[in-house]
Amino acid sequence: VTEPAGSAVPADLSTLRSVLVAGTGLMGTSAALALRTHGVEVYLADRDPAAARLAADLGAGRAEAPTGRVDLGIIAVPPTAVARVLGDLQHQDAAASYTDLASTKSGPQREIEAFGCRADNFVGGHPLAGRERSGPGAARADLFEGRPWVLTPSAATDSATLARGRALARLCGATPVVMTPEDHDRAVALVSHAPQLVASLVAARLLPAADEAVQLAGQGVRDVTRIAASDPGLWQEILGSNATAVADVLDALAADLTAAVRALRDAARTAEADQRATALAPVVDALRRGNAGRARIPGKHGQPPAAYSVVPVVVSDQPGQLAQLFADAGAAGVNIEDVAIEHSPGQPVGYVELFVRPAVANDLAAALTSRGWAVHG
Amino acid sequence: VTEPAGSAVPADLSTLRSVLVAGTGLMGTSAALALRTHGVEVYLADRDPAAARLAADLGAGRAEAPTGRVDLGIIAVPPTAVARVLGDLQHQDAAASYTDLASTKSGPQREIEAFGCRADNFVGGHPLAGRERSGPGAARADLFEGRPWVLTPSAATDSATLARGRALARLCGATPVVMTPEDHDRAVALVSHAPQLVASLVAARLLPAADEAVQLAGQGVRDVTRIAASDPGLWQEILGSNATAVADVLDALAADLTAAVRALRDAARTAEADQRATALAPVVDALRRGNAGRARIPGKHGQPPAAYSVVPVVVSDQPGQLAQLFADAGAAGVNIEDVAIEHSPGQPVGYVELFVRPAVANDLAAALTSRGWAVHG
Repeated sequence: VTEPAGSAVPADLSTLRSVLVAGTGLMGTSAALALRTHGVEVYLADRDPAAARLAADLGAGRAEAPTGRVDLGIIAVPPTAVARVLGDLQHQDAAASYTDLASTKSGPQREIEAFGCRADNFVGGHPLAGRERSGPGAARADLFEGRPWVLTPSAATDSATLARGRALARLCGATPVVMTPEDHDRAVALVSHAPQLVASLVAARLLPAADEAVQLAGQGVRDVTRIAASDPGLWQEILGSNATAVADVLDALAADLTAAVRALRDAARTAEADQRATALAPVVDALRRGNAGRARIPGKHGQPPAAYSVVPVVVSDQPGQLAQLFADAGAAGVNIEDVAIEHSPGQPVGYVELFVRPAVANDLAAALTSRGWAVHG
Repeated sequence: VTEPAGSAVPADLSTLRSVLVAGTGLMGTSAALALRTHGVEVYLADRDPAAARLAADLGAGRAEAPTGRVDLGIIAVPPTAVARVLGDLQHQDAAASYTDLASTKSGPQREIEAFGCRADNFVGGHPLAGRERSGPGAARADLFEGRPWVLTPSAATDSATLARGRALARLCGATPVVMTPEDHDRAVALVSHAPQLVASLVAARLLPAADEAVQLAGQGVRDVTRIAASDPGLWQEILGSNATAVADVLDALAADLTAAVRALRDAARTAEADQRATALAPVVDALRRGNAGRARIPGKHGQPPAAYSVVPVVVSDQPGQLAQLFADAGAAGVNIEDVAIEHSPGQPVGYVELFVRPAVANDLAAALTSRGWAVHG
């Protein structure tokens, strides 16, 4: 169940006056920073006191123990440590309710029940956001803005605790989405964990290749393998804690690959065009389903893919040129939504693509052209 | 053998005074535009006369038959049509030498020999460049700039023809790379064709998923599946003409996936942390090899990945703000190498990352801060 971000902030604030963030890495510190912008009292703890102090210096709260029971304990530790930290905090009666930010939900929930933790004042949480950098220094108050924030209440979770989980998501600018822990884990296996491992395996295949082969790589494989640069330690933790759901997706993918291989080998065996096309039909079907599946992915921040128009401009690769270009766009009253710059090393020009709302693209192109810019397309 | 782009343009120009481009799609028209900037006489032909006329109107040359034999016939048609078009052109004695731009090389080379075409005045060619858009309207004179341009001479190819192939690559701003047709096809299967099909299969898996699962998608899967939006017809042609090499890569990937699945299922069967880590060791190894393989991919335009520093700035999401930001960067004498803009819908601010040479990042951050910008990180 997705809940539109409403105007509920005052009510949310009243249920969340004070929090304890246990674990001041990227996620915990980012949540703390967001809560501070709403005036929530934030206490910071980490098994590494220096990390908590750094988070405090960055404005995320106080690196000290709360004097009384806080409204919400936010457990921002790896999935396999959630139950232990929850048990410790409940033992201290540190908070009225607890949630976590870990990227898998079934495993922690099972351990919470197995460890004999109280389940009524805990709601699992997973904000779908991250960065390639980690640690409190990489934290951003806006990390969760516009992103989904999954909440996975168990049958035992009480309504006050679920409300505090929702309030946390909203105060961080995210959209609460309520799912079962199992549905959550299957979903992230499909849209995050399996793609990570696939990207790593495609990139790993480049390792034994000749230099001449690798230098032929273009933007396609660069995009496919971008996340292969991610931290293996972090992903070992995530994949290990969601192993079955990830294995299920990869099993299906391996079967798809094997079917594609069979079709390609059938096609290679025939020189006759019609037979070749027939043999390749399953591959073409996979390409078409890929088009349709890709079209389902929402754009940045959960919006549908933005249908911006592109206004391409050739500029000289000198300081001041971009400033002038943006100034001229501003003078035309046009808001640039995004921009891409292509380099042509050794060439005195650059190719800039200005992304704007389709309704203003022609006006912008005309305005820039009239000011002497080399607008293309 | 990679050849550094030298100062050989005058010599290249003398071997390439006139060309016929047969096929005025994206690739042929882009080559024609590049050659025109060097004053080469370009004749344009296409089985669709309107496409040739559009290319001509875009400044790519003349949509008419050459009056005499040109220096080079550039066959810019799909791989399965190369031998037929070559045979026709050779029959007309249209050019002194011929090359093609098709994305696979063994198949056309085999057909050229099987069809009884002359092999001495032909050298296979494949500039590693492309766009998601197609047709002459998407052509760009700079499409090939800084990219590798593979040449695949056969044993029969004469030296004058290879020299004309090299001249074409250089005049288009590309770097000639000489390989055998077989090495080329294995390389592009690895760095382009197999990743395309993998991206399509990952995206296709999203098709039957629940809306709530798909909305959890983030930047990772968006990057992995970006090229799944490519044209199935074009890729049917490419994959079909390189079927065996692609199948070999996908076979190996399917085996990698199956090994990962086995490790994940082993890990899921144990609750004990040490045993779990042991079971996951092959997955962690794959993640590490993925890191190393990814690091081998050259950056844009064949450079090593650019080690730019990022200066992050929060700006208000209004016309004029970016102009002012770039103006202030320009006033600080800093050249912005690239820029990324994060949107926060409904929020009055945007997050702009300025990519600059590491040596100037601190100066830029200080200069912008002193002018009142909210520089982060």
